Amino acid sequence: MSDSVLPLVISAPEPRTLDLIFTSEALARFRAKYRIVESSPEGVAALPADVLAEARYIVGQPPIAPETLDKMRTLCCVFNVESNLINNMPYETLFSRGIHVVTTGLVFAEPVAELGLAMALNLARDIVDADLAFREGKELWGGDGNRKARLLSGADVGIIGFGDLGRALNRLLLGFRTRTRVFDPWLPPSILIENGVEPATLDRVLSTSDFVFVVASVTSENQGFLGADAFARMRTGAAFILLSRAGVVDFPALMEAVRSGHIVAASDVFPEEPLAQDHPVRTLPGFLRSAHRAGALDIAFKRMGDMVLEDMDLIDRGLPPMRSKRAERETVSRMRSKPVDKN
Amino acid sequence: MSDSVLPLVISAPEPRTLDLIFTSEALARFRAKYRIVESSPEGVAALPADVLAEARYIVGQPPIAPETLDKMRTLCCVFNVESNLINNMPYETLFSRGIHVVTTGLVFAEPVAELGLAMALNLARDIVDADLAFREGKELWGGDGNRKARLLSGADVGIIGFGDLGRALNRLLLGFRTRTRVFDPWLPPSILIENGVEPATLDRVLSTSDFVFVVASVTSENQGFLGADAFARMRTGAAFILLSRAGVVDFPALMEAVRSGHIVAASDVFPEEPLAQDHPVRTLPGFLRSAHRAGALDIAFKRMGDMVLEDMDLIDRGLPPMRSKRAERETVSRMRSKPVDKN
Amino acid sequence: MSDSVLPLVISAPEPRTLDLIFTSEALARFRAKYRIVESSPEGVAALPADVLAEARYIVGQPPIAPETLDKMRTLCCVFNVESNLINNMPYETLFSRGIHVVTTGLVFAEPVAELGLAMALNLARDIVDADLAFREGKELWGGDGNRKARLLSGADVGIIGFGDLGRALNRLLLGFRTRTRVFDPWLPPSILIENGVEPATLDRVLSTSDFVFVVASVTSENQGFLGADAFARMRTGAAFILLSRAGVVDFPALMEAVRSGHIVAASDVFPEEPLAQDHPVRTLPGFLRSAHRAGALDIAFKRMGDMVLEDMDLIDRGLPPMRSKRAERETVSRMRSKPVDKN
Amino acid sequence: MSDSVLPLVISAPEPRTLDLIFTSEALARFRAKYRIVESSPEGVAALPADVLAEARYIVGQPPIAPETLDKMRTLCCVFNVESNLINNMPYETLFSRGIHVVTTGLVFAEPVAELGLAMALNLARDIVDADLAFREGKELWGGDGNRKARLLSGADVGIIGFGDLGRALNRLLLGFRTRTRVFDPWLPPSILIENGVEPATLDRVLSTSDFVFVVASVTSENQGFLGADAFARMRTGAAFILLSRAGVVDFPALMEAVRSGHIVAASDVFPEEPLAQDHPVRTLPGFLRSAHRAGALDIAFKRMGDMVLEDMDLIDRGLPPMRSKRAERETVSRMRSKPVDKN
Repeated sequence: MSDSVLPLVISAPEPRTLDLIFTSEALARFRAKYRIVESSPEGVAALPADVLAEARYIVGQPPIAPETLDKMRTLCCVFNVESNLINNMPYETLFSRGIHVVTTGLVFAEPVAELGLAMALNLARDIVDADLAFREGKELWGGDGNRKARLLSGADVGIIGFGDLGRALNRLLLGFRTRTRVFDPWLPPSILIENGVEPATLDRVLSTSDFVFVVASVTSENQGFLGADAFARMRTGAAFILLSRAGVVDFPALMEAVRSGHIVAASDVFPEEPLAQDHPVRTLPGFLRSAHRAGALDIAFKRMGDMVLEDMDLIDRGLPPMRSKRAERETVSRMRSKPVDKN
Repeated sequence: MSDSVLPLVISAPEPRTLDLIFTSEALARFRAKYRIVESSPEGVAALPADVLAEARYIVGQPPIAPETLDKMRTLCCVFNVESNLINNMPYETLFSRGIHVVTTGLVFAEPVAELGLAMALNLARDIVDADLAFREGKELWGGDGNRKARLLSGADVGIIGFGDLGRALNRLLLGFRTRTRVFDPWLPPSILIENGVEPATLDRVLSTSDFVFVVASVTSENQGFLGADAFARMRTGAAFILLSRAGVVDFPALMEAVRSGHIVAASDVFPEEPLAQDHPVRTLPGFLRSAHRAGALDIAFKRMGDMVLEDMDLIDRGLPPMRSKRAERETVSRMRSKPVDKN
Repeated sequence: MSDSVLPLVISAPEPRTLDLIFTSEALARFRAKYRIVESSPEGVAALPADVLAEARYIVGQPPIAPETLDKMRTLCCVFNVESNLINNMPYETLFSRGIHVVTTGLVFAEPVAELGLAMALNLARDIVDADLAFREGKELWGGDGNRKARLLSGADVGIIGFGDLGRALNRLLLGFRTRTRVFDPWLPPSILIENGVEPATLDRVLSTSDFVFVVASVTSENQGFLGADAFARMRTGAAFILLSRAGVVDFPALMEAVRSGHIVAASDVFPEEPLAQDHPVRTLPGFLRSAHRAGALDIAFKRMGDMVLEDMDLIDRGLPPMRSKRAERETVSRMRSKPVDKN
Repeated sequence: MSDSVLPLVISAPEPRTLDLIFTSEALARFRAKYRIVESSPEGVAALPADVLAEARYIVGQPPIAPETLDKMRTLCCVFNVESNLINNMPYETLFSRGIHVVTTGLVFAEPVAELGLAMALNLARDIVDADLAFREGKELWGGDGNRKARLLSGADVGIIGFGDLGRALNRLLLGFRTRTRVFDPWLPPSILIENGVEPATLDRVLSTSDFVFVVASVTSENQGFLGADAFARMRTGAAFILLSRAGVVDFPALMEAVRSGHIVAASDVFPEEPLAQDHPVRTLPGFLRSAHRAGALDIAFKRMGDMVLEDMDLIDRGLPPMRSKRAERETVSRMRSKPVDKN
């Protein structure tokens, strides 16, 4: 097939790169099936008129002005591979024209869920401090080292937010026979029930769980919604595991709840990243830290490319994308998770 | 009912105690249903002849001489709550007379499996050293901290030994969609297949797994069967998690395999327990340590009492015990796991 | 709250009725939360201008002319409770304006899947004819009656179409440990893999299955796509179970494949419904018949009302509907399943 | 290896035959590994003394007199492939000597469970009579034909007896999300809970279930234990599915409960087999009949041979059998299921 008849893709995936999101094999298929015009996000507006006119897909989240969009007469889908939606394109016009805007954040669900489960088990069994004690010859043997140890199997678990990540976590919990309650106001209760979890109010999730996982995105409505009151309602000794964004919690209140001994906690996200060298959470006992490492695995990034290829194939055949997650008119403007500036 | 007509139980549970293995509620039921004669293991032989003659159950693993056994004319079951069988009673005679000898080690399966899974996830994500780096202000953010990180989901998993513990571990892996291969020469392949795992040779388990869990008991035949050759066959970077007894591995060879960077490892058991202060495993990078803490949770001990009560109830009704694990004529003499001397 | 400020719903659910799709309790909630204007489908266009202007929801699938739609300035969602989409409203305009069109056919997935599984087991064990023989004193006992009997457990299963119904069927198969292959050109392979089935071509599904379930909707492209060739490729003695619409098969060819003894079959749907009294399928041996009864259970209809209420609640709160299935721009014009004229 | 050193097996499998229970491939392996002495059950006692002395295994359930057993000095295991234990050998002596007596009835669990599930779905959807009506041109279309139809998904299910068959049935129910209650006085409640079912009294199982499956063996204590009272306690319209032995029910009372319209029923077993031509159950509406065909599938018989070979292999290596089910001292004398006289 002559290259000129291949569908045209504008590639501006920053901060990702094509090498990050595609395996070499997948990248070869991508290049074989499409004409790729590579650009920086800022450079998209200045692309030649015929490139804009012929572009079927955009890979990335470049700023798109209404007048640029007007020129993109055959655009079908924007693949936002950063995966946090920012307000830099006229979403209403895109939706009105039937152009899909999709994100590939699903790839992070499995790695983040695994780290979240690991954090829960670490808090339950105090694995970090036990290994440190062992290194220093101060370990406690057998039951002596298990005074606060407990099981996840059979425990009461709470999940706040039941998107891709909450579902991935719920799947990992399959073998643990937990009683799992979920708070997610964006979902109808029956969908939660179908997933084998119990729909619950935020208060009930907080007050009846041994382990609380927070996987809710930041929105315009829920910033800092987990504060001192929320932690006070938790069971004594319960574990709080924060996996989504620091913005949903009052971080000082969380630290205080841990410092007082009321709960234990783990977090992959922090109010500033990187964090100040003298931030008190660095040395807070009862707190397990991870430097925003939960999702950023190479295997996750590589799956982004697979998702993009699968959905392009569907759209090429006149079908809607099914693999990536579509941005929704109703919620796109509510999302407030800051995009990452590093992978 | 007059106390004198209650069935008689000789209680000599050392190193356990009745308070360890029964909740207060269960202990009350135990005392209400049975006449309990408490003894030290050594004191059993010297109990009055009528006590021996009337004893229906023994709780514990006291030494029993043939002539003592002769006097125990109504004995139905020995509940070994230490759970490692030692050669201090005439098993052949017990079996010939139809007296059950049962162990309650099943209670440890779930806690040990949870720690084993936690260890695997810790090795996969380097959680301990990442938290230490964070404490010291040296953490690496995002993908920079994930150079060696990998997923358990979808991984090749090997399990050596598929008793209660192997099955508990397999259950916890349910949500991870692993490809799991099992080596257990004491089980027919079809039982492994029914459990959703692939029967495999030891060599295949070692050479095709990303994570190898060792949960086999020590027997007269398998002491030290995992040595330098075994570790050499493992995939580079694979994780070796030892959960049963140090006796099944050549420990120096394991340390060398980790020191060389070929594999990473975690262990809950050690050649000597407690371990010498200057033992080199204490500071070996790539090795995660736990001081025989995997099973010894209070909740596990309390389940022992529940098992004992459930099986006594069955036997009282003329039925065989179904909850505890029965010692077998064929294998009782092969078991070589040292009993614990602390809980 | 004054009735006049309740959101307005135009109700024209024919051939359903509100009493069919709501339990009395749900109907009471519906009436309490909304102002309901009841109409026939044909009457909608003639409703007063203020009713059209204020209507937030339509329940039903009335014909909507572009000029009527223009007057519906606050319409958010059309709840098509018949659930087969017909071309009687300007879908492009609806989508462009961000008005959702949703269907509630999900409610039929579970009942149809159950009947489908029952049909498969009936064909595998010849239950109908065995019971008839028993009535007539001609039954064959034990193995004599099982010459052609076989198991579904462990069998090769093929599913054609993996929408709600295919997934419901796959869930019912969970305990049967089947090897399940799926043909669905509208889905990316990775979604099939996540659901634990193997993506396959139509040819492979047909030629490697012991049981083939057809649950694909009729579209503009697949009418009659299962014909003599398809049946010829099936394994000798395999079972063909048709659950979606007769339009996807060449019915005479299916009957001939059964008549010749090559396969056995079951169907819930027929080329004409009701069927001519002298239609030869009525007496065809090896063919199990059901008169479009698979989905039409009262419990299924009642779940429609629950879905409608859950999604209205989400939309009322500014969120997108999550419970019903949204019609898609790309596929709405391809759907060709005839609407039912009876419940 | 010289044939004379192969372990010796006495084969007297009547009413089975070696060709019934072994595939040709398995039979070849059996003959290659063992010296087979074929006999009728009655002929065993008259076998030469050296054959008796050298026999390691018996395949079958021949009568064995104490004096014959005395001569069998190396016997390790009796493989009862008929699978109903009859009182024709000195079990106490066998057990005392450590000789296993095992049965292979597990092979029937899966086929019987499948038929049981099929029966439940047939009763729920009235499949037999609907097909008959269709043949006669009297079918009712859509909802008109579903007046009494209901779902198994989400239903209350009761299982009486939780041996191999009850567990196989429970596994098939996995995808149906039923609430399942089990009555089995021979098992501790915790084992039922581990299997995801709720331990319950017989009365609770009967009175709270939409579907009751009876899979309990006949014992000396439970003959006819399900009578008019039991049926009266069932929910109106509930389904009673009998899969084990007719001996556990009062059959006339069952028929009366169905005749009165209180319940519907299905049965694979009957008070006399074959059944009198004029037995009223033959034409009883609301009753689905199967002529003891539930288990007797060729694939099930062939699995017997596999089980025998797997367990012989274990015993040959000094291990206990793990695949077949061991007869127990406590219960062997209580079993009362009549052996079959045909396959």
